[in-house]
Amino acid sequence: MIEKGLLSEFQRTLGRENVFHEQVDRLSYSYDAAVLDPVLPDLIVRPVSSEALGRAIRLCNENSLPITVRGAGTNLSGGTIPLPGGVVILTSALNRILEINEADLYAIVEPGVVTARFAAAVEAKNLFYPPDPGSQAVSTLGGNAAENAGGLRGLRYGVTRDYVMGIEFFDSYGELVKAGARTVKCVTGYNLGGLLVGSEGTLGIFNRITLKLIPMPAAKKAMMAVFGDVRKASEAVALIIANRIVPVTLEFMDNFTIRAVEDFSHVGLPIDAAALLLIEVDGHPVQVAEDAARVDELCRRMGAMSVRVAETAEERDKVWEARRSALSALSRVRPTTVLEDATVPRSKIPDMVAAIEEIGNKFSLKIGTFGHAGDGNLHPTILTDRRDAEEWTRVEHAIDAIFEKALGFGGTLSGEHGIGLAKSRFLENETSRATITYSRRLKAALDPKNILNPGKIIGG
Amino acid sequence: MIEKGLLSEFQRTLGRENVFHEQVDRLSYSYDAAVLDPVLPDLIVRPVSSEALGRAIRLCNENSLPITVRGAGTNLSGGTIPLPGGVVILTSALNRILEINEADLYAIVEPGVVTARFAAAVEAKNLFYPPDPGSQAVSTLGGNAAENAGGLRGLRYGVTRDYVMGIEFFDSYGELVKAGARTVKCVTGYNLGGLLVGSEGTLGIFNRITLKLIPMPAAKKAMMAVFGDVRKASEAVALIIANRIVPVTLEFMDNFTIRAVEDFSHVGLPIDAAALLLIEVDGHPVQVAEDAARVDELCRRMGAMSVRVAETAEERDKVWEARRSALSALSRVRPTTVLEDATVPRSKIPDMVAAIEEIGNKFSLKIGTFGHAGDGNLHPTILTDRRDAEEWTRVEHAIDAIFEKALGFGGTLSGEHGIGLAKSRFLENETSRATITYSRRLKAALDPKNILNPGKIIGG
Repeated sequence: MIEKGLLSEFQRTLGRENVFHEQVDRLSYSYDAAVLDPVLPDLIVRPVSSEALGRAIRLCNENSLPITVRGAGTNLSGGTIPLPGGVVILTSALNRILEINEADLYAIVEPGVVTARFAAAVEAKNLFYPPDPGSQAVSTLGGNAAENAGGLRGLRYGVTRDYVMGIEFFDSYGELVKAGARTVKCVTGYNLGGLLVGSEGTLGIFNRITLKLIPMPAAKKAMMAVFGDVRKASEAVALIIANRIVPVTLEFMDNFTIRAVEDFSHVGLPIDAAALLLIEVDGHPVQVAEDAARVDELCRRMGAMSVRVAETAEERDKVWEARRSALSALSRVRPTTVLEDATVPRSKIPDMVAAIEEIGNKFSLKIGTFGHAGDGNLHPTILTDRRDAEEWTRVEHAIDAIFEKALGFGGTLSGEHGIGLAKSRFLENETSRATITYSRRLKAALDPKNILNPGKIIGG
Repeated sequence: MIEKGLLSEFQRTLGRENVFHEQVDRLSYSYDAAVLDPVLPDLIVRPVSSEALGRAIRLCNENSLPITVRGAGTNLSGGTIPLPGGVVILTSALNRILEINEADLYAIVEPGVVTARFAAAVEAKNLFYPPDPGSQAVSTLGGNAAENAGGLRGLRYGVTRDYVMGIEFFDSYGELVKAGARTVKCVTGYNLGGLLVGSEGTLGIFNRITLKLIPMPAAKKAMMAVFGDVRKASEAVALIIANRIVPVTLEFMDNFTIRAVEDFSHVGLPIDAAALLLIEVDGHPVQVAEDAARVDELCRRMGAMSVRVAETAEERDKVWEARRSALSALSRVRPTTVLEDATVPRSKIPDMVAAIEEIGNKFSLKIGTFGHAGDGNLHPTILTDRRDAEEWTRVEHAIDAIFEKALGFGGTLSGEHGIGLAKSRFLENETSRATITYSRRLKAALDPKNILNPGKIIGG
């Protein structure tokens, strides 16, 4: 519970209506989308301006209160779980799109802008902001940048980091640091913007973000390839890439996921298929037609039973809506959903799919696997019940086994969900002791009081 | 002069044949391509393996010797000028391409690999590594990464940073830090690779770099548009981008540069033109044909006197060879060549070109302007004689004026050459006091003895 004098100071500084401290508020902001224990913050504040944000940070600094910034709380690795006695800063009122510059192809936004709203505003000007995390309908651009969010289009268009041209952020003292520029090239000073992307709120708090925009591709085509054999489907993924075709999206769904999604969204997915590939190509209309024909041929060569092209925009949207509902659909099956994102070099996708199946069998667990196969980023999703201690132990062993396999294949612990609290103990396995030490030195120097989302990424 | 016992220790550690300390060696490595006073290092070492590199760094750390790593010394901002009493580490023997992975579209290289050699090796496999700094024939990938080098293709394909998937580097203690992965998505730990790119050797010393490759575009077309009016040429640049065409390359050359280049390379440039645009588009053959026709039309609409398409690969190569020789050609005109790279949002190119002309007139200086107009990155090149104190004062005023203009247009001090020693005193004008403080804290924490290329970027 926050001390009364301090509470009044926050209320005076930010306005009573922007400070929350009741039990219901504390509970509401105690968790995120990761399967981890909730932690009650003492205070939740909602700055309504850049100045208010700075004041809030300085007040936290003066009182050594740990800060966790929260966009939409869709975080899957515990990055938005607050600290006991801590302050949650909500970005929901910092939600202005400050500029969309059509001549120079960039936009400047506040951190609380919802991803899909921004993408639509950009599209209305016939421009394109590609990063599209699964949660884009509610997630915020600040959260996307803090986590370096990926999405379905990462294969061709990269991830959030690839679109952040500059970040203006408050350091732990509440001072404004400016990194990057509105120009496509900038090597003025350290690449602090690049460092802050993916730093999960531990090195600074975003005030404004400058994002790169690109012209909207002239045409696109979505297709669904149905496989009777999981391995063949995953081999088709590697074959497409090896043939130098880089689709926008190349998604995989196993039978378990197909059934869950169909049961949830009734879009007519083939529930008897062993696996599906959902593919989208874009670009010049001629290129799109050629790529689509080539993908069709390669999938059939790998034994696809059918390859269907979405004939209308509605049909295409339905396919992607179904894919986007995969997590929601799977999470209805059992009380607890553990969504992983270990990532491997794309050619290792067939081996990784097989390994996940084996792990599921070995530990007698239901694992639905779907995800961004084209960039090696699968989402094995363990459906379980955390209250069942015996089963939960098996889940933990399975997670360890998945990480071990991914690293064995030359992969990485996390493709797009971040390390947060959930994976920090595995970090050294992938990197080195010196990497952790280097990272901790950096954190300690930039946040000497350890008030910026402490404990995330590097633990401690 | 290095103390004898220490010299013997370096010789024992690295082999006599890899340690240089004669006056001629010290002079050879005392300068780079920036117009700055040379500084003699005490020692020059050439590690021949990763292990030797680590040993050299640890020996420097134990003896608190400042280290400057040197690739090809093409640096234009003084980043490779050593410290008095310092050690220069040459990467020339760390020049292996360790892997080109065609299935997963990445390569792993040592820092001393020459850029053009790597690009050719990649192209032989029908893959593409786009970053092409002007000095690519001699520059190294380690140097490119340390400076976040740009190049002619930055407009469409981005800069070195956009292709660095991972960096393994030695910290100031000589411990190995691993950042990034061989996967296209990776959010495992801080984005240390992103931070190290462009850090000019001040935060770590590269051991291995993992680079992203992309499929080679199917077709390309180069064209030259000749203008009788400088402003019209620069307006055509903005018009092309505003029409949502993103050429690979969109280069500008003023009359002064055209004459110098033609005099140097005799490729038949139109020496009476007020300005040239050199443009290349790539992609699917149909897209290329359409984009080329559109660029032609837009240039003519802006008053181009002629637009010529290179009919053969040889003709195309000749155009780019001429463009690449611009700096060499200009530097023959006067004893001292000051090449700047202040960068503005692309729509401000016409204003910036006009501003540079005014500045040249105001300070009675010869300024040849060329560069990557498409991404707002011009290279105003002041031709002067540093031995003439009165003229040099005017040069310094002109540089100040160019920076002031660029910042006034919402631009940045350096698009691709780095801050180095040359621009660190201007850094605060673009960023903020807090940005410098934040950067210095970071540097001090990661290099407490201040032995990693001290004084670069953040001064001090």
